[in-house]
Amino acid sequence: MPIISPHILAYRASLESFLKEDWGAGDWTTGAVPDRAMQARVIAKSELVIAGLSVAEEVFRLTDPALIISVLVNDGEKLTAGTEVMRVQGSCSSILMAERVMLNLLQRLSGTATLTRSFVDAVAGTKARILDTRKTTPGLKILEKYAVRCGGGFNHRMNLADGILIKENHIAAAGGIASAVASARLSSPNLLRIEVEVETLDQLSECLAISDIDGVLLDNMDEKTMESAVAMRNSSGRRFFLEASGNLTLARAKSVALTGVDFLSVGALTHSAPAADLSLRLDCGNS
Amino acid sequence: MPIISPHILAYRASLESFLKEDWGAGDWTTGAVPDRAMQARVIAKSELVIAGLSVAEEVFRLTDPALIISVLVNDGEKLTAGTEVMRVQGSCSSILMAERVMLNLLQRLSGTATLTRSFVDAVAGTKARILDTRKTTPGLKILEKYAVRCGGGFNHRMNLADGILIKENHIAAAGGIASAVASARLSSPNLLRIEVEVETLDQLSECLAISDIDGVLLDNMDEKTMESAVAMRNSSGRRFFLEASGNLTLARAKSVALTGVDFLSVGALTHSAPAADLSLRLDCGNS
Amino acid sequence: MPIISPHILAYRASLESFLKEDWGAGDWTTGAVPDRAMQARVIAKSELVIAGLSVAEEVFRLTDPALIISVLVNDGEKLTAGTEVMRVQGSCSSILMAERVMLNLLQRLSGTATLTRSFVDAVAGTKARILDTRKTTPGLKILEKYAVRCGGGFNHRMNLADGILIKENHIAAAGGIASAVASARLSSPNLLRIEVEVETLDQLSECLAISDIDGVLLDNMDEKTMESAVAMRNSSGRRFFLEASGNLTLARAKSVALTGVDFLSVGALTHSAPAADLSLRLDCGNS
Amino acid sequence: MPIISPHILAYRASLESFLKEDWGAGDWTTGAVPDRAMQARVIAKSELVIAGLSVAEEVFRLTDPALIISVLVNDGEKLTAGTEVMRVQGSCSSILMAERVMLNLLQRLSGTATLTRSFVDAVAGTKARILDTRKTTPGLKILEKYAVRCGGGFNHRMNLADGILIKENHIAAAGGIASAVASARLSSPNLLRIEVEVETLDQLSECLAISDIDGVLLDNMDEKTMESAVAMRNSSGRRFFLEASGNLTLARAKSVALTGVDFLSVGALTHSAPAADLSLRLDCGNS
Amino acid sequence: MPIISPHILAYRASLESFLKEDWGAGDWTTGAVPDRAMQARVIAKSELVIAGLSVAEEVFRLTDPALIISVLVNDGEKLTAGTEVMRVQGSCSSILMAERVMLNLLQRLSGTATLTRSFVDAVAGTKARILDTRKTTPGLKILEKYAVRCGGGFNHRMNLADGILIKENHIAAAGGIASAVASARLSSPNLLRIEVEVETLDQLSECLAISDIDGVLLDNMDEKTMESAVAMRNSSGRRFFLEASGNLTLARAKSVALTGVDFLSVGALTHSAPAADLSLRLDCGNS
Amino acid sequence: MPIISPHILAYRASLESFLKEDWGAGDWTTGAVPDRAMQARVIAKSELVIAGLSVAEEVFRLTDPALIISVLVNDGEKLTAGTEVMRVQGSCSSILMAERVMLNLLQRLSGTATLTRSFVDAVAGTKARILDTRKTTPGLKILEKYAVRCGGGFNHRMNLADGILIKENHIAAAGGIASAVASARLSSPNLLRIEVEVETLDQLSECLAISDIDGVLLDNMDEKTMESAVAMRNSSGRRFFLEASGNLTLARAKSVALTGVDFLSVGALTHSAPAADLSLRLDCGNS
Repeated sequence: MPIISPHILAYRASLESFLKEDWGAGDWTTGAVPDRAMQARVIAKSELVIAGLSVAEEVFRLTDPALIISVLVNDGEKLTAGTEVMRVQGSCSSILMAERVMLNLLQRLSGTATLTRSFVDAVAGTKARILDTRKTTPGLKILEKYAVRCGGGFNHRMNLADGILIKENHIAAAGGIASAVASARLSSPNLLRIEVEVETLDQLSECLAISDIDGVLLDNMDEKTMESAVAMRNSSGRRFFLEASGNLTLARAKSVALTGVDFLSVGALTHSAPAADLSLRLDCGNS
Repeated sequence: MPIISPHILAYRASLESFLKEDWGAGDWTTGAVPDRAMQARVIAKSELVIAGLSVAEEVFRLTDPALIISVLVNDGEKLTAGTEVMRVQGSCSSILMAERVMLNLLQRLSGTATLTRSFVDAVAGTKARILDTRKTTPGLKILEKYAVRCGGGFNHRMNLADGILIKENHIAAAGGIASAVASARLSSPNLLRIEVEVETLDQLSECLAISDIDGVLLDNMDEKTMESAVAMRNSSGRRFFLEASGNLTLARAKSVALTGVDFLSVGALTHSAPAADLSLRLDCGNS
Repeated sequence: MPIISPHILAYRASLESFLKEDWGAGDWTTGAVPDRAMQARVIAKSELVIAGLSVAEEVFRLTDPALIISVLVNDGEKLTAGTEVMRVQGSCSSILMAERVMLNLLQRLSGTATLTRSFVDAVAGTKARILDTRKTTPGLKILEKYAVRCGGGFNHRMNLADGILIKENHIAAAGGIASAVASARLSSPNLLRIEVEVETLDQLSECLAISDIDGVLLDNMDEKTMESAVAMRNSSGRRFFLEASGNLTLARAKSVALTGVDFLSVGALTHSAPAADLSLRLDCGNS
Repeated sequence: MPIISPHILAYRASLESFLKEDWGAGDWTTGAVPDRAMQARVIAKSELVIAGLSVAEEVFRLTDPALIISVLVNDGEKLTAGTEVMRVQGSCSSILMAERVMLNLLQRLSGTATLTRSFVDAVAGTKARILDTRKTTPGLKILEKYAVRCGGGFNHRMNLADGILIKENHIAAAGGIASAVASARLSSPNLLRIEVEVETLDQLSECLAISDIDGVLLDNMDEKTMESAVAMRNSSGRRFFLEASGNLTLARAKSVALTGVDFLSVGALTHSAPAADLSLRLDCGNS
Repeated sequence: MPIISPHILAYRASLESFLKEDWGAGDWTTGAVPDRAMQARVIAKSELVIAGLSVAEEVFRLTDPALIISVLVNDGEKLTAGTEVMRVQGSCSSILMAERVMLNLLQRLSGTATLTRSFVDAVAGTKARILDTRKTTPGLKILEKYAVRCGGGFNHRMNLADGILIKENHIAAAGGIASAVASARLSSPNLLRIEVEVETLDQLSECLAISDIDGVLLDNMDEKTMESAVAMRNSSGRRFFLEASGNLTLARAKSVALTGVDFLSVGALTHSAPAADLSLRLDCGNS
Repeated sequence: MPIISPHILAYRASLESFLKEDWGAGDWTTGAVPDRAMQARVIAKSELVIAGLSVAEEVFRLTDPALIISVLVNDGEKLTAGTEVMRVQGSCSSILMAERVMLNLLQRLSGTATLTRSFVDAVAGTKARILDTRKTTPGLKILEKYAVRCGGGFNHRMNLADGILIKENHIAAAGGIASAVASARLSSPNLLRIEVEVETLDQLSECLAISDIDGVLLDNMDEKTMESAVAMRNSSGRRFFLEASGNLTLARAKSVALTGVDFLSVGALTHSAPAADLSLRLDCGNS
């Protein structure tokens, strides 16, 4: 199955604003020295899952349409340290002006893909899938959600409009789970599913009796409780997904997955992934 | 000395776009249930240095100008787990719609401030200062640089236009350090300083003989070499700063600072700081 | 159940651009005469369902924050000819500059609400609901979808991202319904439902056997065929919605609804609704 | 005479925003299935006057510059049902993502052109011309005014800045027609004409005595009164146009035109034209 | 007659971008020192006609809504050196951050108003009016055209869409003046006038015979030729304006006006007016 | 040394908005006549220093990518009257629509370059350099600063963020020069220099004793006082620049430069340079 990538119109204007942010009134240092032809290579400096190659390529193109760019690997590949991922030929000044924004994006997206892959690998052999959350970097949501897919993860809702997630406050305001669900089902677009966040098995039991609910989010439960939840779901005879959420560290991912839940949602994939180590090598002498 | 904060015009339009990104076509879940008055509190869930309170406040105001907001601490304060940082009263729907973007920003900025503070504390007792880099999140540079200041760090140049940093490629293109510096000095605005990146003490020596250079960046040197660099600088009789850069982990910060360099620049402050742990507690019952 | 209205941030910038579009370089006519205080009233000139009052109000506010505005009815109400819907007091120049854009929006949105209500009334007594489509006016989608809700209709997906609708081409590309569905289920956010467009009962039969399908769109079927489709669905024992689509005129709505389908989706609600008749009465003399 | 079309810079940014509005976070359905080459044809499904072919073409180009597009007819042509108007070859995914926005625009603009043409045909044989109004869809004014031209109509002022139209309120504020006209003539750019809206023949008589007036708008008069107005104008010896406005239905257009007025202005051309029936046929099998 | 001023929505977004342009990443100097309350006064340092006070006021408001601003004179007034035009009280930091952009605009607009007034005074006693041209500063057209009005001048067309001006090339393309005029009259909105640029009296003679022409622009003629042109026009019995254009220096304005032409259009009003001398006096001690 | 030019991304969006500003709803005149191929030449009509050729070229390209453009001279060249600077071939309509904005920019930028060159020539033979200021046209700062470079001048800071300039108010707020400087040095990015504005030699003397100051701005001093300032600086043994500012007319430039100051900053370069005389010659007949 191909990794669905965002359309370039969805992020090109952002890339342009990122370049302007980094350039300010212009690059005095580069402007002061003669320009010349150069070859540069983007290199993975440690093991990582690459994500964002089209983005990196577009940063170069926006800076200078005359650059010749070769992309040597595919988003989603796990690379060993030292792998060359992209080669760029053309104006040295252009390459230098694009370098920082290109790397800032590629390192961040690959960081998210790499961390996602760690979770995916951790739950390998179970049927659980790794989900992201809405805890993304403001302004980069579409790209970070894509990076999660590159790492083998799956996307929870992209924004408040493409899924119904009923939480404690919604339930309190509506006067109960059943009325919150009924109201949401009636007022929301008919192609959206309904998920309810629960903190206890009693709440889960209540949910299993409501036919309009498509699944629940098990908030901050321990593995034992999750196992009970799975058992309750299985014996209910309903198609009904269970999503584990809260404090899902890498160390704990496997044991949570083994409880039989369908999804683990992990905020850290996008809010705390360290940058992947990539650099731009400039081959000045020989071009 | 006050922490210089960015003007609200510098980021308000971004906040508006971040909210739209997170809302998509609208919040069906919240819209489906009756609205009501509520009080919410932003709480630090672990020890952290807080940064971005004005930003968080503006996210609430953009969502609903009628919200009553009390900010209870100051940016740059080190908070213990459990500290209440902000209180918000008003429409439950508005608070829920603002929550995620507000937290995504506050956690990220406080994460950077907290990591910065760790480095600052690590070099306490030396004269070294902690600097950030241009390795910031695209679109958030002004806010992240501010978060570094909240953590007690200092800002390297904000963009390519507000400082001259001559690297290997510039030197090669110009045919030597002296000619690169002369050209940059002549062509750049006169209120910009010139820094040169060096990898060897020989290069440092060459720089010390060029009067237009204001300082050098010592790239990836070990502590012993840095000590020699400091000695060379000190014996030169020149006002001339030395900045250490490359692989500056927290573990190594103190020993590098003790070499006598003036600055340690740390990319991780902005590219790899984990999100600080903050949450929004909704007090539904009693409002 | 309240009608979920879009957040003002979702359309305020558009309103500002609409005003600029209508003003061009400025209103020479109004500028040439002395300004004075005035009262104006927005009047329904024929029976209609009103929609867009907050939008109309914001158009006035953007033009002149000093205007005093009273909104006298609620979105979604069916009004008789002659009903006063809004009263505005303040600068005559401001009211004249806002008038045209305000009416263009209010008439269009009320036109859609009124037509929607006709369809809703036509199917009254059945369990069928009226849905809109993506055949909206470019740039006004959020407002027009809201107008449909004001008319008692419901929203199909807002955009390509908040629902899976598998059509003939997707099926052909995937090599069959089952594989298209499997692929979409795996790659799409887990809170999205899957709908498949079918043209024959054989295809419906195929769909009823695929557990990941949540419903089907019956494309251009006659009432007799739809009745068969409903019977097949009912005897399948599955929760599975049926949506009728194609050539759904007002005249035919009731007979289609009586087949037992769950939804009628009607493109004309947004692409061909005539403007509702509303006008602005300026009471010059007595203010 | 060629139909003057808007410059692509005047609408390209709008088209891009329309695509983003329709895509939201992306097209999951299309992304889930393999892409492949395809040929698609835009077909007129009923008799219509086509308008907006360049716009439709640009929607495809923005979605995918690699699409090969052949436009087979010209804007302004009256087409019979079944006519092929455009052919597109290339990525199936791209065509599917562009389809809806392209059709929404082409159907709307052709709807306006078609309705305009009906009015133009209705007054054929008289010297009257059909004018549009400022009752356009917010955000689409330039395109809809172009569609009117495609239908054989003419444009009234595009916005408040490119014409002086003095109405009842301006007259009241200025203390009479003569002073309103004098003030407008003095304060407005010298290449703008002045038109005055009148409701009675007495007012018309007053206007005919004021040399700076270039024409009048006859508001809501019956045919008999209009005939008198024309007679008064003709006997005045002045170059002075007469524009009929208000309740100008298709049924009544000819009789109004026969009174000898110069223009009929018709708001319905842009605020109530039903969408023209066009569709995209996807030729999956043979590409 | 009041001076028609542009609506604030027409320029507010520009002012915001101008402030961002001048601030870059922020004002380090002002941020480094403690803020305090201050009073500042805008002073005319030489005789000038003031224009742009609302603009200046809005620059302050955008920078800091808490500033208390008193505007002490009116746009269009001729001020003597030393006149106080505006007083501002509040945050010293805010005033310093707004100062430069505020003055850059106020000096430029007042410069245009002052130069315009010189021309207006030069032709006093004749019936000639001073017109501007489209030779405005890109991005400031609406404000500069307003400044011309403040100086007692009048506006030629604001842009290519609000007036027909047929030049040599249009005539050549159409195959003659008559056919160019006929085509323009037919295809353009009916509230626009038609002006033709001529270089000889023969061309003028041709124009006087074409009833759809409203006036001509006499390009680069000497006074004697203009007198002949006026005589031809007067004896033609037509309402028909004459506009002198080309090399209209202040020294020559009176003699041109005395030829009897209706308008003198002067590009220098907007392309070469020196900045008027205004400054901001900061009263630090006593606030 | 090459003249550092701004990246096209830094101004392309502005050029597009400038074209839209000048076009309004479209060019009716040009649209009314048949289009045809044409050759046009941009000609210097008096002696001038040319600046902005890439900008002019991009205005043509945005209007019509099919135009064939030859640029015949280089920015920064001093041209004699009659020199052809650019040749354009292609659609007559496109050339006419681009003409005005292209010339408005090219004339303004060349005006600044020409005036700058006059100052540069006036101080030839001294070591003084000509600087610009922040008194630029709002919205055109990057282009005007570039024009100054084309004229042989140098740039003072581009905005408030790329240099520290401590003025009287900052000193008062901080409680003295030394504390203002110390605070600015500590809080500002380390690659920025510090300049202090002084009005007396006593203040200069105080500055010379503060090691963190890089130079001073001598505000409104006469030549004799400047000579003393230079002598004080020279005898101090410090690298320390002196910038003369205030009332620096062309007549006085040489005598100021001969005092030995390093820089003369001249606001008039950007706020009061008259437009350079350039025109577009349309060769209709022979293309």
